[in-house]
Amino acid sequence: MACLPPSVHRLIELALEEDLGRGDVTSEALIPPDREAVGEVLVKARGVIAGLEVAAAVFRAVDPTLAWEALARDGEAVSPGQVVARVSGRARSILAAERTALNFLQRLSGIATLTARYVEALRGTRARLTDTRKTTPGWRYLEKMAVRAGGGHSHRLDLAGGILIKDNHLALSGNDIPAAIRAVREQAPHTLRVEVEVTSLAGVEAALAAGAEVILLDNMSLEEMRRAVALVSGRALLEASGGITLETVRAVAETGVDLISSGAITHSATALDLSLEIR
Amino acid sequence: MACLPPSVHRLIELALEEDLGRGDVTSEALIPPDREAVGEVLVKARGVIAGLEVAAAVFRAVDPTLAWEALARDGEAVSPGQVVARVSGRARSILAAERTALNFLQRLSGIATLTARYVEALRGTRARLTDTRKTTPGWRYLEKMAVRAGGGHSHRLDLAGGILIKDNHLALSGNDIPAAIRAVREQAPHTLRVEVEVTSLAGVEAALAAGAEVILLDNMSLEEMRRAVALVSGRALLEASGGITLETVRAVAETGVDLISSGAITHSATALDLSLEIR
Amino acid sequence: MACLPPSVHRLIELALEEDLGRGDVTSEALIPPDREAVGEVLVKARGVIAGLEVAAAVFRAVDPTLAWEALARDGEAVSPGQVVARVSGRARSILAAERTALNFLQRLSGIATLTARYVEALRGTRARLTDTRKTTPGWRYLEKMAVRAGGGHSHRLDLAGGILIKDNHLALSGNDIPAAIRAVREQAPHTLRVEVEVTSLAGVEAALAAGAEVILLDNMSLEEMRRAVALVSGRALLEASGGITLETVRAVAETGVDLISSGAITHSATALDLSLEIR
Amino acid sequence: MACLPPSVHRLIELALEEDLGRGDVTSEALIPPDREAVGEVLVKARGVIAGLEVAAAVFRAVDPTLAWEALARDGEAVSPGQVVARVSGRARSILAAERTALNFLQRLSGIATLTARYVEALRGTRARLTDTRKTTPGWRYLEKMAVRAGGGHSHRLDLAGGILIKDNHLALSGNDIPAAIRAVREQAPHTLRVEVEVTSLAGVEAALAAGAEVILLDNMSLEEMRRAVALVSGRALLEASGGITLETVRAVAETGVDLISSGAITHSATALDLSLEIR
Amino acid sequence: MACLPPSVHRLIELALEEDLGRGDVTSEALIPPDREAVGEVLVKARGVIAGLEVAAAVFRAVDPTLAWEALARDGEAVSPGQVVARVSGRARSILAAERTALNFLQRLSGIATLTARYVEALRGTRARLTDTRKTTPGWRYLEKMAVRAGGGHSHRLDLAGGILIKDNHLALSGNDIPAAIRAVREQAPHTLRVEVEVTSLAGVEAALAAGAEVILLDNMSLEEMRRAVALVSGRALLEASGGITLETVRAVAETGVDLISSGAITHSATALDLSLEIR
Amino acid sequence: MACLPPSVHRLIELALEEDLGRGDVTSEALIPPDREAVGEVLVKARGVIAGLEVAAAVFRAVDPTLAWEALARDGEAVSPGQVVARVSGRARSILAAERTALNFLQRLSGIATLTARYVEALRGTRARLTDTRKTTPGWRYLEKMAVRAGGGHSHRLDLAGGILIKDNHLALSGNDIPAAIRAVREQAPHTLRVEVEVTSLAGVEAALAAGAEVILLDNMSLEEMRRAVALVSGRALLEASGGITLETVRAVAETGVDLISSGAITHSATALDLSLEIR
Repeated sequence: MACLPPSVHRLIELALEEDLGRGDVTSEALIPPDREAVGEVLVKARGVIAGLEVAAAVFRAVDPTLAWEALARDGEAVSPGQVVARVSGRARSILAAERTALNFLQRLSGIATLTARYVEALRGTRARLTDTRKTTPGWRYLEKMAVRAGGGHSHRLDLAGGILIKDNHLALSGNDIPAAIRAVREQAPHTLRVEVEVTSLAGVEAALAAGAEVILLDNMSLEEMRRAVALVSGRALLEASGGITLETVRAVAETGVDLISSGAITHSATALDLSLEIR
Repeated sequence: MACLPPSVHRLIELALEEDLGRGDVTSEALIPPDREAVGEVLVKARGVIAGLEVAAAVFRAVDPTLAWEALARDGEAVSPGQVVARVSGRARSILAAERTALNFLQRLSGIATLTARYVEALRGTRARLTDTRKTTPGWRYLEKMAVRAGGGHSHRLDLAGGILIKDNHLALSGNDIPAAIRAVREQAPHTLRVEVEVTSLAGVEAALAAGAEVILLDNMSLEEMRRAVALVSGRALLEASGGITLETVRAVAETGVDLISSGAITHSATALDLSLEIR
Repeated sequence: MACLPPSVHRLIELALEEDLGRGDVTSEALIPPDREAVGEVLVKARGVIAGLEVAAAVFRAVDPTLAWEALARDGEAVSPGQVVARVSGRARSILAAERTALNFLQRLSGIATLTARYVEALRGTRARLTDTRKTTPGWRYLEKMAVRAGGGHSHRLDLAGGILIKDNHLALSGNDIPAAIRAVREQAPHTLRVEVEVTSLAGVEAALAAGAEVILLDNMSLEEMRRAVALVSGRALLEASGGITLETVRAVAETGVDLISSGAITHSATALDLSLEIR
Repeated sequence: MACLPPSVHRLIELALEEDLGRGDVTSEALIPPDREAVGEVLVKARGVIAGLEVAAAVFRAVDPTLAWEALARDGEAVSPGQVVARVSGRARSILAAERTALNFLQRLSGIATLTARYVEALRGTRARLTDTRKTTPGWRYLEKMAVRAGGGHSHRLDLAGGILIKDNHLALSGNDIPAAIRAVREQAPHTLRVEVEVTSLAGVEAALAAGAEVILLDNMSLEEMRRAVALVSGRALLEASGGITLETVRAVAETGVDLISSGAITHSATALDLSLEIR
Repeated sequence: MACLPPSVHRLIELALEEDLGRGDVTSEALIPPDREAVGEVLVKARGVIAGLEVAAAVFRAVDPTLAWEALARDGEAVSPGQVVARVSGRARSILAAERTALNFLQRLSGIATLTARYVEALRGTRARLTDTRKTTPGWRYLEKMAVRAGGGHSHRLDLAGGILIKDNHLALSGNDIPAAIRAVREQAPHTLRVEVEVTSLAGVEAALAAGAEVILLDNMSLEEMRRAVALVSGRALLEASGGITLETVRAVAETGVDLISSGAITHSATALDLSLEIR
Repeated sequence: MACLPPSVHRLIELALEEDLGRGDVTSEALIPPDREAVGEVLVKARGVIAGLEVAAAVFRAVDPTLAWEALARDGEAVSPGQVVARVSGRARSILAAERTALNFLQRLSGIATLTARYVEALRGTRARLTDTRKTTPGWRYLEKMAVRAGGGHSHRLDLAGGILIKDNHLALSGNDIPAAIRAVREQAPHTLRVEVEVTSLAGVEAALAAGAEVILLDNMSLEEMRRAVALVSGRALLEASGGITLETVRAVAETGVDLISSGAITHSATALDLSLEIR
């Protein structure tokens, strides 16, 4: 969506308040209020850019008279030396917003970049890479957006965006898998699929028999995953999950699973190096 | 501070709304509302814990009737298998808050853990490790808290928490270093020190002569830093900055600088692995 | 969920501010601040109660020292003269919160009551009654909760809680049904089912062939619906929608459709008559 | 006022967040971001339109680049087939805002429409129709605006916008009517009139003697109301209240009362049928 | 009201964030987190105390475990050396909240104190002292509360809490006084009185004839006010306004006016000297 | 900074809601919605203007179509009869915003005016006038801005914008001055200076010896201050504080101190008289 939801604007407001809420004592003492400048967002490492709309919104929130021009699109591969955006107007406003805008852009681009490496590793397999709910609190919308910019897909967006029956649900409710599936089918929106987490092939069989539409294979070995794929044979989607790394992701995909979910692409991405250069 | 500032409570509210705002369709369908449970926060990798107060605040925000018991303190080194906190009460509430609480705790502990590794590398030198303003937007207070939990120190907390004259300030104001220092001294609060960023020994001399209390050595070689230390000879604090890694940080410290700042400890920390186990 | 999400607390805050933000000039002039009272929420018309948690939250938000005792549960059928809750404490606080608490309770109970009448009309058929997104702005969570209290079910909770391809999507994208289904399958979360709106039996066939998991029959005649049921024969869920009234809902259900959605149960429910009596 | 108060903008923000906060998975998968469209708000039932400014604000909040043109004014009688507004710009933005804008407009127009029917029934009498505080929580300002659009009047806007002494105030304070009027006159702002609720002619006499400027006749018979009118003879305003319906409202007015208040026009109005058609 | 409206809690949140949002670097470095203390709010100048509930709310907002005991009530005359409240618990929390709590209390007590001096000057006359809308933005509710604590009364609480027709309204609408009164009577809530601002005796006559319930005498001489009192002779309330000082207020009251409004009691009150002493 | 931080916009929102949240019943009844007007902000007393940006933001927040033209700059000395700003557009919008805009401007200009009188009294001395943390809660940023407009300087902006060791810190921590300075130096950001409050010359000596960069002389006599100046002889900054008035401030400055802080310039400034005249 071209337009960011209200919660993202609230996060931007929090971010500006925490850095700028008492003013910028250095710039206010040195730079005349009417001095103009042009800043360029410069890429300093290879990667995939994401978050340009958010960066633009940060500059606009600081000073609506700043002009912003994007020179790249989210999801685009970028290289050192490339300028991905240009902002012009009052110099004080540009300096005031600089760090916050870059902090958004570096983190989101870092996620897109790491995602793209996983996706590249999957090339030619049938597996789709998905994120998880292991996102930075307050950043769910943005980080899932960055994963998609990197070529990944969204798993459920929140606790109401999918049904996922885990061990704890069974233990705390006293249900077995068939009873649990019946209960959620009876109560939950028909617009959602039912996914069940299992840890064994017996679990896969039980879930499939009970009508699970997606089965999450939790920390299974490659061999178990292959057998699960053969067993299910297309009657449900299979998701591999648990400790999958950039080194192991292709082997997992080659078992034939449909989905591979990774918490690391959001919770352990590192920033993409970017800077703002005043011209 | 034992008590978190209002902005952190607003971030927690954003985080709960984004995950729980439409309810938890799975748990609501399966777990009776009066079912009770006990959850334990379990460490799964070596590191330093940080953010326990925030995690507690998340559980309380979801359900004020939950009981929380911390079994460790922020800044404590932890090992796999260690339980750092216990939460008990309504099972649905625990499951609803689980992911958000862990997401806070994993990120903050990741930062504390990485910081502690840098600090360990500095042991025996005079250098203090500091963070930067390269923090996750909305998380400034928390990430600086985590850095301190890991044994690091805070650089300026926001744009008003210190004076830092950079190249852009000089270029945009047309001042040289002495004029810039006079201008900020004339206008800025007397409670703040003046720090000046320089890129050469000539800059060091100019800043020192003009009365800078802290001098930031931007991307200097080890040799230049050593000469700067000799030149300044205790008359100002010297801060090394720019691309310093865990591999290089000790060599930098051994030049005799007072401060080493690192953006990586906040923008490129990875999550510490933790989970919540239902007993 | 026993605990209301942050957005509901924000709505309660808006509601209290709009009524109480300048104080209660009458009570403050007349009632001593330490006068105590007991109030009872009295039912004055047959119906189904919903919103008791919200009413409790309103009283608590006005004055945390008030004691609230629920004497019924959401979803319970109630009759005139029945007391469904009791609140005690400072008289001024009870009067200050009274109107806002009742306004929440009357509207939500009105929705539950109307829903229950539709559900009663469906008794013995296979059809599930669902709501729509035609809810009062700001009240989405609460009104969907009230529909469930009345025995109905939730359709998608928001624009991200289900995929629903409508005419406008086809027209604006230039896709036919199979292309549209492929596109959403390619991009949208795997946790969501694909529902397609059709207006003819040809549309039903196309959607089914293209893999739609739910087909929305928009404003079809009873005869067309019966033929759609026969045609699909369980291979997808069928949802009837469009102008269905309490008078026609059973006949629609008897065509064999799986789901009947009604905007009227939220946008055109009238308040259930309740009052607060001071004892 | 042409400009909506901040609380209405906060309600709009809540409304957009609840529907759009996680994005619009269907439109984002299908409609290119730069596709343009024109939407028309089409009337599908006779009524009175209200809320056009709010609908405009919803579209603007989603996307400030959308162009909105109102083709009717609040308070105007409208007929099926009539287009009351046109919005143009990015297709995704229009679809994203559509439901929320319509939900506001349908509810407010429903209230204006029902109010207009009551007002029509009063034509030629001296009685003014007023609303009550029985409004949808969070919607006080908007629903009172819609009542005025329908030809009704506002009763007190909040607990500080008028003095209204009810039975509970007398009972809890131990005052009789004269003592209560003295107490509120002594303390409350001189800018407010004093209204007293009574249930008998004796109450009317007591209130009048004690200087009440408005007397609320609670659930009186037509005969009692006529006698109250004769008794008061213009020395105070008389307000009829309690269970007045569209069927009985004219007979009540013909007793000669000055004011008739109705909770039903806000709490039991049903939506006016409107849709947004893409051209 | 014992309970503060939501907007006051939002102001408290703003106030805490602006002082405490980055922590308290001095106390955190020096005072152990578990150190306990007792603080006493000490009066250092004669005056009238106001705002004790707000101060309590500030301490509670910083740390809910602090214990607060009020030793005086709002509106009470206080003397140097008097302790008006005691707070105990974590020393860091007390120090963190101290300044904000005192800032509220000093300003509100300053207003109550100045108001009480005006009220004292009016003793024995029939005139009531009222405030105006010239209050500190964000503080309307609190400052009007402080005026009442000082023995004054509230004028209209906001732009909807009374009708006040001024010169600008007549000029911009082209109405004379009778037409303006008819227009507001026709449209505004019946719960509000009509007040008209006049600058001459002719204006008084016109307003009275047209049915004004309150007449504001703007910047009239004492002689004119006396003649206005004689002319009106109790048929409307008369309010004196404009540049009235503590020196002139009694003479104004002795003209026989009913109301004297003063902007100075809110916009030009000075702080009452208070401190917090750690025992 | 040309741009106000988010917290100021939140304060403006609170201020508009409290005055305008239920509408403006008088203007809405009298002034046609499309009537245009021009208003001028007129100075009625000598002083220094401050807050023009905030006033502009208030008008824009009420109605973005209003045009604002500043005819003076913050910090400018103004005289009765001078027009400092002009606003034009919809008459209703101008009247709706008038009072709130003036309330901001009158208070901030009152602070700038009082500050300027203190600064004038210091002319020719070396002393800098600073504010304190005794600001109106919610107004910290704005009041410190007004002090600077009046020629004063900011003391620490919040509890994290400077280190200030007071008696309570020593008493509650059990540290003497040297230990306290070591502790804060060890933990607090290196960007902040250390200031120590003392009450005697012995304290001055201790603080100086321990490395304090600023020493606050609390309620010392002029003679003591002179001796402190001689003693320190430029090795630290000296701040005079405690009950300094306009009458005594010059004598204090003539002792040779570097800084004089005054709570009165914020907590006891009175409003500058301004009005808005409709042309």
